[in-house]
Amino acid sequence: MVAVDTVLFAIKDDRLKTYLVELRGGPARGKWAFPGGLVRAGEMLDDAARRELRASTGLGDAYLEQLFTFGDPSRDPRAHVVSVAYMALISDPAAVGRPSEKYVGGEWFEVNELPPLAYDHAQMAAYALKRLKSKLEYTNIAYALLPKEFTFAEFEELYALILGRPLDRRNFRRRVMAMGLLRLLPHTRRGPHRPAALYSFAQQSLKFIQML
Amino acid sequence: MVAVDTVLFAIKDDRLKTYLVELRGGPARGKWAFPGGLVRAGEMLDDAARRELRASTGLGDAYLEQLFTFGDPSRDPRAHVVSVAYMALISDPAAVGRPSEKYVGGEWFEVNELPPLAYDHAQMAAYALKRLKSKLEYTNIAYALLPKEFTFAEFEELYALILGRPLDRRNFRRRVMAMGLLRLLPHTRRGPHRPAALYSFAQQSLKFIQML
Repeated sequence: MVAVDTVLFAIKDDRLKTYLVELRGGPARGKWAFPGGLVRAGEMLDDAARRELRASTGLGDAYLEQLFTFGDPSRDPRAHVVSVAYMALISDPAAVGRPSEKYVGGEWFEVNELPPLAYDHAQMAAYALKRLKSKLEYTNIAYALLPKEFTFAEFEELYALILGRPLDRRNFRRRVMAMGLLRLLPHTRRGPHRPAALYSFAQQSLKFIQML
Repeated sequence: MVAVDTVLFAIKDDRLKTYLVELRGGPARGKWAFPGGLVRAGEMLDDAARRELRASTGLGDAYLEQLFTFGDPSRDPRAHVVSVAYMALISDPAAVGRPSEKYVGGEWFEVNELPPLAYDHAQMAAYALKRLKSKLEYTNIAYALLPKEFTFAEFEELYALILGRPLDRRNFRRRVMAMGLLRLLPHTRRGPHRPAALYSFAQQSLKFIQML
């Protein structure tokens, strides 16, 4: 049997959070898990991931990327279920609604403070976070977590938050600008202090940065 | 049903090549494919990939990495077989022997001159090459394709060969050295001209380069 499970990330309350659902039944009843379920006969894997994400969050659209397939025979005590894990990213966590009746409920958790997870979902969480961190370094994937327009300070905070390590501000700015990720917008954001320059991503789909 | 298929790469005759086997039976009989087969009950995915790689090449050891899971219901006309694709890398293609009786034979093909492939293996080939190219830019993965000791010219040729684009030699050398990938060895290689400096990888397991 083949299943899909999706690790959904968003920035919420200035923290990187992931969305978990509480299982109503099965051997891991009462535990938290990433939203997922079995792939239907004749269904594409991506379609199954989108269907399950919609059922558990109401989201009709999200950045979606296949992560890794977990196939340890002992991962589910009922049967040998191979799970294709996905990562989903959204910029607006408020768009997530209540999950379907399949789950007791759903909640956002800070990535470093997850509750005990069902099956091998702790491994999935670790893998997803690792993938997000490395893609942040060599692609424009941050576009899927940020609003259309943002200040450079907001952009930098996102990186510091996810990478979880202090950044050398001057080097960071120089390297990001050299990568050509961002576009300076003609308008600024007014605030209590001087107006802040606004940026957007040059491309709103995944792009690998050429390093060599 | 779940299968594994492995895209094996090596440098052979100064070209990036991949190893294909000719199928003896099934709906794609007579076509070329990546070595693979069904995962057995209770078997780990990595173990299945290693078992099938050994059966088709005799290789007991290789760098092995899970790539992507292909699950289009139409990929195999017989049944809905989900295939977990792997990438394998070796530094010595001469270590590959004849495949088992399951296949008519095996052969190395230049990655840009592949014969018509079975099932969706052309997609797997494209995906594997893309992954190899991008990992070359932000990890030390080249260690798995090169001998223990090499000259900088050999290292650079490998990159030019796989990336398939001209490299700015001075920038390339400067960036690679800044990445801390390589270690200068105390001995040199004697040749017809002046002795060549020899390098090895600082680490012989996968390491991501920190860019920001």
